[in-house]
Amino acid sequence: MKKGILERLDAGEVVIGDGGYVMQLERRGYVKAGHWTPEAAVEHPDAVRQLHKEFLRAGADVLETFTFYSSDDKLEISGNVTSITGEQINEAACDLAREVANEGNALVAGSVSQTPCYANSRNEEEVKAIFKKQLDFFMKKDVDFLIAEFFSYVEEAVWAVQVLKTSGMPVAATLCISPEGDLNGVSPGDCAVRLVKAGAQIIGINCHLDPLTCVRTVKLMKKGLEDAHLKAHLMVQPLGFHTPECNHEGYLSLPEFPFALECRAMTRWDMQKYAREAYNAGIRYIGGCCGFEPYHIRALAEELAPERGFLPPASQKHGLWGSALATHFKPCVRAKSKREYWENLRPASGRPLCPSMATPED
Amino acid sequence: MKKGILERLDAGEVVIGDGGYVMQLERRGYVKAGHWTPEAAVEHPDAVRQLHKEFLRAGADVLETFTFYSSDDKLEISGNVTSITGEQINEAACDLAREVANEGNALVAGSVSQTPCYANSRNEEEVKAIFKKQLDFFMKKDVDFLIAEFFSYVEEAVWAVQVLKTSGMPVAATLCISPEGDLNGVSPGDCAVRLVKAGAQIIGINCHLDPLTCVRTVKLMKKGLEDAHLKAHLMVQPLGFHTPECNHEGYLSLPEFPFALECRAMTRWDMQKYAREAYNAGIRYIGGCCGFEPYHIRALAEELAPERGFLPPASQKHGLWGSALATHFKPCVRAKSKREYWENLRPASGRPLCPSMATPED
Amino acid sequence: MKKGILERLDAGEVVIGDGGYVMQLERRGYVKAGHWTPEAAVEHPDAVRQLHKEFLRAGADVLETFTFYSSDDKLEISGNVTSITGEQINEAACDLAREVANEGNALVAGSVSQTPCYANSRNEEEVKAIFKKQLDFFMKKDVDFLIAEFFSYVEEAVWAVQVLKTSGMPVAATLCISPEGDLNGVSPGDCAVRLVKAGAQIIGINCHLDPLTCVRTVKLMKKGLEDAHLKAHLMVQPLGFHTPECNHEGYLSLPEFPFALECRAMTRWDMQKYAREAYNAGIRYIGGCCGFEPYHIRALAEELAPERGFLPPASQKHGLWGSALATHFKPCVRAKSKREYWENLRPASGRPLCPSMATPED
Amino acid sequence: MKKGILERLDAGEVVIGDGGYVMQLERRGYVKAGHWTPEAAVEHPDAVRQLHKEFLRAGADVLETFTFYSSDDKLEISGNVTSITGEQINEAACDLAREVANEGNALVAGSVSQTPCYANSRNEEEVKAIFKKQLDFFMKKDVDFLIAEFFSYVEEAVWAVQVLKTSGMPVAATLCISPEGDLNGVSPGDCAVRLVKAGAQIIGINCHLDPLTCVRTVKLMKKGLEDAHLKAHLMVQPLGFHTPECNHEGYLSLPEFPFALECRAMTRWDMQKYAREAYNAGIRYIGGCCGFEPYHIRALAEELAPERGFLPPASQKHGLWGSALATHFKPCVRAKSKREYWENLRPASGRPLCPSMATPED
Repeated sequence: MKKGILERLDAGEVVIGDGGYVMQLERRGYVKAGHWTPEAAVEHPDAVRQLHKEFLRAGADVLETFTFYSSDDKLEISGNVTSITGEQINEAACDLAREVANEGNALVAGSVSQTPCYANSRNEEEVKAIFKKQLDFFMKKDVDFLIAEFFSYVEEAVWAVQVLKTSGMPVAATLCISPEGDLNGVSPGDCAVRLVKAGAQIIGINCHLDPLTCVRTVKLMKKGLEDAHLKAHLMVQPLGFHTPECNHEGYLSLPEFPFALECRAMTRWDMQKYAREAYNAGIRYIGGCCGFEPYHIRALAEELAPERGFLPPASQKHGLWGSALATHFKPCVRAKSKREYWENLRPASGRPLCPSMATPED
Repeated sequence: MKKGILERLDAGEVVIGDGGYVMQLERRGYVKAGHWTPEAAVEHPDAVRQLHKEFLRAGADVLETFTFYSSDDKLEISGNVTSITGEQINEAACDLAREVANEGNALVAGSVSQTPCYANSRNEEEVKAIFKKQLDFFMKKDVDFLIAEFFSYVEEAVWAVQVLKTSGMPVAATLCISPEGDLNGVSPGDCAVRLVKAGAQIIGINCHLDPLTCVRTVKLMKKGLEDAHLKAHLMVQPLGFHTPECNHEGYLSLPEFPFALECRAMTRWDMQKYAREAYNAGIRYIGGCCGFEPYHIRALAEELAPERGFLPPASQKHGLWGSALATHFKPCVRAKSKREYWENLRPASGRPLCPSMATPED
Repeated sequence: MKKGILERLDAGEVVIGDGGYVMQLERRGYVKAGHWTPEAAVEHPDAVRQLHKEFLRAGADVLETFTFYSSDDKLEISGNVTSITGEQINEAACDLAREVANEGNALVAGSVSQTPCYANSRNEEEVKAIFKKQLDFFMKKDVDFLIAEFFSYVEEAVWAVQVLKTSGMPVAATLCISPEGDLNGVSPGDCAVRLVKAGAQIIGINCHLDPLTCVRTVKLMKKGLEDAHLKAHLMVQPLGFHTPECNHEGYLSLPEFPFALECRAMTRWDMQKYAREAYNAGIRYIGGCCGFEPYHIRALAEELAPERGFLPPASQKHGLWGSALATHFKPCVRAKSKREYWENLRPASGRPLCPSMATPED
Repeated sequence: MKKGILERLDAGEVVIGDGGYVMQLERRGYVKAGHWTPEAAVEHPDAVRQLHKEFLRAGADVLETFTFYSSDDKLEISGNVTSITGEQINEAACDLAREVANEGNALVAGSVSQTPCYANSRNEEEVKAIFKKQLDFFMKKDVDFLIAEFFSYVEEAVWAVQVLKTSGMPVAATLCISPEGDLNGVSPGDCAVRLVKAGAQIIGINCHLDPLTCVRTVKLMKKGLEDAHLKAHLMVQPLGFHTPECNHEGYLSLPEFPFALECRAMTRWDMQKYAREAYNAGIRYIGGCCGFEPYHIRALAEELAPERGFLPPASQKHGLWGSALATHFKPCVRAKSKREYWENLRPASGRPLCPSMATPED
């Protein structure tokens, strides 16, 4: 019997999250950018299963169900899923996550996210009905806990938490907001307070901005909780892309979104730095979102191996800090088999006609 | 019965190659950088099979056996493969490629590459014996044709071609050289002549340098053949990274190799440009090497769909030139649903502390 | 009889300031970086006179006496001025400015700046005695008005204003602070209030940061005055260098300071944009500081020629917006003879191994 | 009696040239870009005299007459010089250079450059007549030697040398070409041979490209002379701008030419590196062209002070390698008072929206 998510966090363990599914599966050919819906859970289960396995192997302690944007209203609007129902997708996704999670010590998290319904109507009853429907799938399929993630408005996240709490399962909630607050201008500290008061035991930030910015926002949430004498576990699942110039809209506002983000991709060494920063900020649920590939998750697990006491399976195929280069036939490559080299490298883009920063849309 | 590789090329068809296996499987957790050996064919067949499937789905007409660096001498030197034999790896790799190729119209190419033996001894007999051993596996497993690839010295490539030709199967040969020639200073034109005289029916360039540079080198090979009144089909499988400042050592000489190449990664739009350039240069076997992920292969197939007459399966999940963004809720994203936008974008790296170019090692 | 500075500003005229003397004369060979003292007024009067003439010709309505860092305590500390007295420097500088100003419609402004004495002692009496001594020179030489500039602490600037006000002449005061406030944390708005209450009729910002940042700080000062129901004329004399990453220490904290600032230098087109921004912000005394060469001042005068009703003499040698290129023999140069070209150009540095941003020291 | 130019070079002395006049005087307000004619010699002699003085003070051993583009045909075409004759300009320029040269140990070089006549007619007789007319001014005014410079075609330069040789004075000749050769495709080596055969005692390269590229071209010229068993002194007066991406058209082909070259400007440390490279290449007449300000010339003189045995007057106001920063009040500035710091600095442009390289026009 595996320990639950709260048992782990209460015991002070570091929980490594998984990475991003939709962007990675878009590149693998199974998700359509612009729609970002998860019908691949039904159409191409092998592809989804394999990505789950890679995250597990990289060290993930949690596998999220591949149910992003799988609410009925979203599927309908996107229009690219016609012969499959939301029920089929949600259930297939639960099965895939469970199957792979059982190959290791990972937990399955059922995940809900922002709805077009909220954006259009602000109608609490309708929005909650959507979350309730997804929750029913998760309960039927017996996930281990629940995550409400990718909310731009804390109000909608609170509604999601309230619905998910009815299950009796642990609930985590993450917003995709900047240090300036949610799109209504609610500060990160106030957002945190509202989420915890709604019942979330784990709160934090996901997506939209780069790791160090997201950690900064979580720190503001933590401060908000402290000021309100509230407690919760902290969580962060940021982008795997550098977004230093982004505003509160996050990477959606970048000219490069979504088809030219390559040169913003973070290295494994960037990820080790991020893992350390997150840990030092008191965050204990540390994962990724769009842009996080399996090797990025492995980097988190490797950075925090001293705290966790073990390396992930995928480290069998990775020399720490480049150590496997020590026997390379080229001396200039051998010279790279050490931490100092990779920590201090400033990688070139090979794009001298390109700027280093973009002007985000407002 | 599928048409063979020469039938296709002789008929003027465009053949789309697959992308890079070792770097992609390193990121997925199954290959160890520094060694780059393919024991995953035995250890983690699901992972290899899945990547084959993704390339097939993206439009690849050829699946190479995952047998890079699987000669006995290389496996022994690398030292990270102890309980598995080269025979097991080569045979498992053939089976995986065949299994997936049979799901579509793709051919299986058995692949051999440069050996440490050549670098150390220059002994023709010993080197040829190594290639002969791999060839025996391929013949036992019944591949469709053979590729000798990733050779820095045309002499070793010629030896490989001579061995592979004994099979009676079609033979392709690609060098990993720059427009300056092979590491002995043999010009691309002379290299081409030697390879064709040795019996290769398809010749070209793979790895080490970026697409446009590799196309330039193939053009020099083509010119060499013309000057010698020889004929062969042309092939190119370049890096998926920008390497404008590299010398004849290719990306091995970059400070970013191999763990910080992210920001050099090419976009799908870069790939469409490359596919067109390669086509215009008269190359008809167009694929990729390290850095080419499935979506890069899809981009080749999409660019050349007018010539080929069809789109690959993975295009079901891709709006051409960003067209699937046309219904996005943000106007600034909707504005990106057209070719003009993506063709002209100069993507920012988000790394203002980094240079755009590196100083390669000599 | 020329109109005084307040008459001009009260009448709504735009007053163009001059540019930076010490950095420009350092490059011309007459000022020693690190000391930045103005002994050239005595040692090389031709060099100082010529620079005054160039600023006048470029459109400057004010010539500041070349008396930066010429207080006795500063001269003594710097140690590089041994056979000349502060009195000699200050008086020679006044004569030079007057001589050139009389060749046009410009006014002479006697200038005092921050003292080492303040940094070391915070002793009001001692600091004021230093300013009083300089003031005596200015009164003896009959300047037109006074400027207290380059103060990091509003307290010292207030003392300077209080001393200068005893002359009965108009007094301007500018701080070298960021939008965050002075080095004691006094906000720009509060700084403005204190300076006006001390008697300054013109207030603003000079040096340390780039034009758009300085304009932003002046706007905060303006807001502070409005909130306090006070009035003053606004003035700005920023750096002529791009400093987007600088903190409150300004360009002193840049790795490039002071001998590698070249690639941060602003173009004439940057200056036109700045002049417009400053004007739109309600600022009517618009000039420059370190990095402003004569052609930068001309660019201010050209941008604001519609408001001022005339072009400066130096515009005889400048086609507006590149129009003098219209007859160039190369078509690609002729194509540049228009505003649209220069306004939209993103100039390349020609330094692909260099970053675009630096990490300022704290 | 001063030693002549050949006496100095024959004795193995390093001769420091002066810098660029037209671009610097454009910025000071006296030359019109697009025309680049030197009427300021008559209109504003103080401005020209002062720049001569600054170059002399910086260490220049030669002052070129400010007679660039002052041939009658060029003045007529430019159309911006109406009430002054070429004779007046040339004679005034000679007087100014002589006056300042006599304040030190510098020589006066009369300078002629490419003519529109050659570009339009290729008529030897007409072109030579133009040079002859300028030569007459120089002989009347008694310059010390002659320079034919800024020629894109060696043929025109040869004609100039042939005319200048009739004076009996020493003649130097420099081309503004790239390592690829002149605009007719004559190689640098062949150009060198032709110039020496025409009678030039000093040959080399000026303008159009950055220092290290120009030194490379001079090396090719040197090799050409050696192969032809000819001898001449070598000279180089390159641009003071980084132009790594330029083709044979030089900086004329850059988008930034001529009004946004700021961020390509070289630092004094770049110049020291250049001076050393030039010296090591065997060049003994080392100066600058457009973009070289007085402090750049000082840097040449400082780098080569060990060879020359003395520092220039302007070094009284310059601590070598930043040594004058040793007493700065900020520790981070004090830390910069050493060679190692400035030699290794990679200066940031402060322009994150700009590329590092441009696409030159063909």
